[in-house]
Amino acid sequence: MSATKPLAIIAGVGTGTGSSVAHRFAKSYTVALLARSQSTLDGVLGSIKAQGGEGIGISTNVTDPESIGNAFQKITQAYPSSSVAVAIFNVSGRTVKPFLQLSLEDWKSANDVTTGAYLFSHHSLPLLLKHAADEPSDYCPSLIFTGATASVKANANSAAFATPKWAARALSQSLAKEFAPQGVHVAHAIIDGPIDIPRSRDHPGLKNVPLEDRISPEAIADTYWWLHTQPKTCFTWEIDIRNAKEKW
Amino acid sequence: MSATKPLAIIAGVGTGTGSSVAHRFAKSYTVALLARSQSTLDGVLGSIKAQGGEGIGISTNVTDPESIGNAFQKITQAYPSSSVAVAIFNVSGRTVKPFLQLSLEDWKSANDVTTGAYLFSHHSLPLLLKHAADEPSDYCPSLIFTGATASVKANANSAAFATPKWAARALSQSLAKEFAPQGVHVAHAIIDGPIDIPRSRDHPGLKNVPLEDRISPEAIADTYWWLHTQPKTCFTWEIDIRNAKEKW
Amino acid sequence: MSATKPLAIIAGVGTGTGSSVAHRFAKSYTVALLARSQSTLDGVLGSIKAQGGEGIGISTNVTDPESIGNAFQKITQAYPSSSVAVAIFNVSGRTVKPFLQLSLEDWKSANDVTTGAYLFSHHSLPLLLKHAADEPSDYCPSLIFTGATASVKANANSAAFATPKWAARALSQSLAKEFAPQGVHVAHAIIDGPIDIPRSRDHPGLKNVPLEDRISPEAIADTYWWLHTQPKTCFTWEIDIRNAKEKW
Amino acid sequence: MSATKPLAIIAGVGTGTGSSVAHRFAKSYTVALLARSQSTLDGVLGSIKAQGGEGIGISTNVTDPESIGNAFQKITQAYPSSSVAVAIFNVSGRTVKPFLQLSLEDWKSANDVTTGAYLFSHHSLPLLLKHAADEPSDYCPSLIFTGATASVKANANSAAFATPKWAARALSQSLAKEFAPQGVHVAHAIIDGPIDIPRSRDHPGLKNVPLEDRISPEAIADTYWWLHTQPKTCFTWEIDIRNAKEKW
Repeated sequence: MSATKPLAIIAGVGTGTGSSVAHRFAKSYTVALLARSQSTLDGVLGSIKAQGGEGIGISTNVTDPESIGNAFQKITQAYPSSSVAVAIFNVSGRTVKPFLQLSLEDWKSANDVTTGAYLFSHHSLPLLLKHAADEPSDYCPSLIFTGATASVKANANSAAFATPKWAARALSQSLAKEFAPQGVHVAHAIIDGPIDIPRSRDHPGLKNVPLEDRISPEAIADTYWWLHTQPKTCFTWEIDIRNAKEKW
Repeated sequence: MSATKPLAIIAGVGTGTGSSVAHRFAKSYTVALLARSQSTLDGVLGSIKAQGGEGIGISTNVTDPESIGNAFQKITQAYPSSSVAVAIFNVSGRTVKPFLQLSLEDWKSANDVTTGAYLFSHHSLPLLLKHAADEPSDYCPSLIFTGATASVKANANSAAFATPKWAARALSQSLAKEFAPQGVHVAHAIIDGPIDIPRSRDHPGLKNVPLEDRISPEAIADTYWWLHTQPKTCFTWEIDIRNAKEKW
Repeated sequence: MSATKPLAIIAGVGTGTGSSVAHRFAKSYTVALLARSQSTLDGVLGSIKAQGGEGIGISTNVTDPESIGNAFQKITQAYPSSSVAVAIFNVSGRTVKPFLQLSLEDWKSANDVTTGAYLFSHHSLPLLLKHAADEPSDYCPSLIFTGATASVKANANSAAFATPKWAARALSQSLAKEFAPQGVHVAHAIIDGPIDIPRSRDHPGLKNVPLEDRISPEAIADTYWWLHTQPKTCFTWEIDIRNAKEKW
Repeated sequence: MSATKPLAIIAGVGTGTGSSVAHRFAKSYTVALLARSQSTLDGVLGSIKAQGGEGIGISTNVTDPESIGNAFQKITQAYPSSSVAVAIFNVSGRTVKPFLQLSLEDWKSANDVTTGAYLFSHHSLPLLLKHAADEPSDYCPSLIFTGATASVKANANSAAFATPKWAARALSQSLAKEFAPQGVHVAHAIIDGPIDIPRSRDHPGLKNVPLEDRISPEAIADTYWWLHTQPKTCFTWEIDIRNAKEKW
């Protein structure tokens, strides 16, 4: 495998935003993709390779310390001479239920994503710092989090949806302040509205939103790439993104 | 024990804000106090009883489902005919450490408070709803959360401090929207600055703040009582509180 | 006239919130009421006096430097030995129109309220500072601003409604930080939803909101009084207020 | 003059950000630059033309209805067949003074910028809407506002600095919601920290900030260009921008 391209590690790669982001970063970097489903990863990687990209997909439970530890070990073993230029945390749940119907298991399962965000950041940041210190390049190493409307607004029946999103936003803000002076750019994107992905096309509350009124996952991927290219003199922590037709 | 007074259940009762809140609500209600240390609870209850108040203290780990389940069972057994007018979640950590020095245990321990907030709310809300439905009284049943500056601002080195605080704020906002129409008032107080409590008097970063520049725990307790007295026509979700001398 | 009671100066006294606030503060203070309509002021003052209160009403255009200057002069002449304990800025517009239909006159008229907020604060603060310096009393001198949902959210067609509300909120935050260390408490209340006042009962967009789903102006007045009673160890800058049934 | 290139109209062109933005947009568009000083405009335009760009500079007081009306008339006359693709409002003051030392003239002068923002938007939007309706092109017509830290935070002694900034942010949010469905992209950039421009190099409070710790005006200009290129499926209303070394 090529040692020359840096790595982009992306957690939460399904058939939607994560896949678009993976395709976008694969134009410049080797990608390491983490998700639960190996078959989904294989599909995304097959498509990336068909377009001349390169990378690996590792079936991972990002909320499990051992699983994510193994994933980062495999990445390092597969690309021992590649540095890590980008890490993207695109993992998300969407538990919407009246609060008294939320079981402890529902709650823990939803909020385990916060542990996943910690684990992913904890494994990525030393690699990103190394990239910042060792390898001056065009772009600053970047850690990007995918947020949602629920990252800034906690609606009725959405306690288990909002709590991990607010927590991840807090994490991203703290890390942005702590690591920017060391050259690592941490950013948070608030995706405000339905994305044009298979899952939301079938979602009961979203399927009636016309395609042209949805957010484009490719445009989100372009946005993440643009965030990555920002120079040290001009870092953005947070942007919001929505379709022009969205009511807000 | 008297069956006539409603109950105020308060989680997170140490020697500071929790104790002041317990004393304040004990003027009108029977108090049920939850904290890890039985000896601290005994001290607070002794002082409350000396002032004519009444209540029980139950050593509880609010992040442990079994422990908090037992606590609520004991409360119900001790006061079978009392309804629950108030529940206050005053549990908080303060883990400040460079992110890469935060162990997974540090992280989990800090963020377990989010599970505690769920458990406490899940046990309290059915009782508060019952109070709202069965017993018209002067004041609406209330669930109050203690927040901090870290609830709205995530500083460098404070990822483990800010994440559970942002999560609890999200929880309180979601619950406020879901339960207000059913008559339960959910509120969140942002305590912005050092409180005049023994712990902060000894805290390295806070001990040089003069006493007159600290927030009074008794005034916080009065604020919580005032929030509890708001009528349905005028509910507050969030207030900030700081000493007049605080820079912000 | 009695020299012993301090003054509460209230700008923006119509038949709704301003009137309720005036009645509430008249229980403890002499009131000086400013509004455009002398007949409205006479009606409110008549009712206050019938309840044993005292005060004057001065027809004032708070956006006009000369008019408001005259009003403060009249207040000082009428009550030369009274200090000023409270100043409340309750002036508000509600211009909702597509942006391109907003004339420059519409815009200026709506945003002149920002000048009014400056003028009212500029006249009040020296008096409030004097109260803070000369007359230790139970309560800190207070300057309170009435905000709205539009103070934190700028909707389509609401540019002229939101701009002066955001500006007044900024003013209140700056003044809170500047004057709290000198003993003057500045607060901002976000009134989120329709108030049960004659004007909103007839308002096309609000008249279908049932009375029990409206915010009580008397409860707002109680809230302002409570803000005024907060001690220096526990100042609130901002609270939100809404009816329990409000969707948000 | 060429009729083929669309226009970018930029208000507030001094030697700093405005000049960088003008140079950046002149790579693709004809620029129409508004500022008080004709000699500054001439200098900026001379430099733009030397790089192959094109445009006019019109001495304008954007807070004066007649002056800004004349400016837009001159633009239309100079480029009768050009449509308007971009309008940027980069006008700003920086009045920092204890509140009681702020004269009414200080206040009005600072807050007149809010009227300027209205006038500029009111003149630009019909042209931008026309561009959206008539001329499908790669990029959506855009209206961009330059904000500052003071747009979201009102510090002590900064009432006259913060009020117009909060008002302009409100205006931009209302316009973003109102005009996005019609195809015009309205955005707001929060510039959080000192920019590397001559004015801030000499500013007493900023001159000790090392050059490498300042925000690059060229990078801000690139950011504005990038905002302009966002497709309808992915509009950003707000981004924050700061140097990696900035403490926040």
